[in-house]
Amino acid sequence: MTLRVLGVDPGLTRCGFGVVDVDPDRRARLVAVGVIRTEPSTPVEQRVHAVAVGIAAVLDEHMPHVVALERVFAQNNVSTVMGTAQASGVVMHLAASRSLRVALHTPSEVKAAITGYGSADKKQVGAMVARVLGLTEAPKPADAADALALAICHAWRGAAASPSGISVAPLTPAQRAWQAAERATRR
Amino acid sequence: MTLRVLGVDPGLTRCGFGVVDVDPDRRARLVAVGVIRTEPSTPVEQRVHAVAVGIAAVLDEHMPHVVALERVFAQNNVSTVMGTAQASGVVMHLAASRSLRVALHTPSEVKAAITGYGSADKKQVGAMVARVLGLTEAPKPADAADALALAICHAWRGAAASPSGISVAPLTPAQRAWQAAERATRR
Repeated sequence: MTLRVLGVDPGLTRCGFGVVDVDPDRRARLVAVGVIRTEPSTPVEQRVHAVAVGIAAVLDEHMPHVVALERVFAQNNVSTVMGTAQASGVVMHLAASRSLRVALHTPSEVKAAITGYGSADKKQVGAMVARVLGLTEAPKPADAADALALAICHAWRGAAASPSGISVAPLTPAQRAWQAAERATRR
Repeated sequence: MTLRVLGVDPGLTRCGFGVVDVDPDRRARLVAVGVIRTEPSTPVEQRVHAVAVGIAAVLDEHMPHVVALERVFAQNNVSTVMGTAQASGVVMHLAASRSLRVALHTPSEVKAAITGYGSADKKQVGAMVARVLGLTEAPKPADAADALALAICHAWRGAAASPSGISVAPLTPAQRAWQAAERATRR
């Protein structure tokens, strides 16, 4: 079964998102990619809310099976970690409210899955994401490429962990309806 | 005008909330208080979502004019700060989606406003909250008392900053309806 994954690189100034369809043989296709931006001068609750509105729209339009989110460590850059965690919290809530599972992956897990080594730089990740998805150039900005890398990483790691097929969270009624419609169009 | 404030002491293991009505002369009454608890063994997105569902219910039942939230610093306890920030993000989103303003106050601002000095301990804060609200004993657990202290602190600081009356965010249509209904019952 093709797995549709939403990857999110959480943040308030730039929140990257990317949706990919990944087949059991690891082939991946781009469905959607973008960045939600908010201004640092805007009250923080409105920034968080703008990220929520944007991610909710992506979830409702593209109906992924699972959400892959960057695992944030409190040891990271202290000045940005709070906004990153606040954005993460909202994405988790939006996913859980749609009965979607959230999988967390560290940046080095993502780099290792995509490029083969955990200390790859952003340029290498972007180039590899472009190659995997058959794009002529790396998605920009880096937050968008990182979100796609997260989504691909999740599908590939899931496939490796579950040889009998990619494991997904239980589907909601809306997802089952979408899946049935999708199958119908492929006949 | 009486100001209704929801105070939230954000967290995933225990998220304290308290709603108070505060008159322009600083008199305060308890409207609601409680704690949302989630299990550390539960997937984090479900914990965040449970906090969201609980706070949304409080917002919709009690319709505060403003939300006061503890300002979280990344320098705090590293092991809990991520969950605290994730819960904060969800509370901000829920408030902003209802056109409510979110005010952030540091723990020392709250202690100073409630007890008169910024390094008061939890027991002193709880005792003072009980006295202000006319309760026979301090609300428990401490997260609940802290949430009430935040709410009282916000109203008192707002009153001090705005001598002509307590300043509030613009009201939503639902709030105006509620306010009109409240006025009607007082005639």
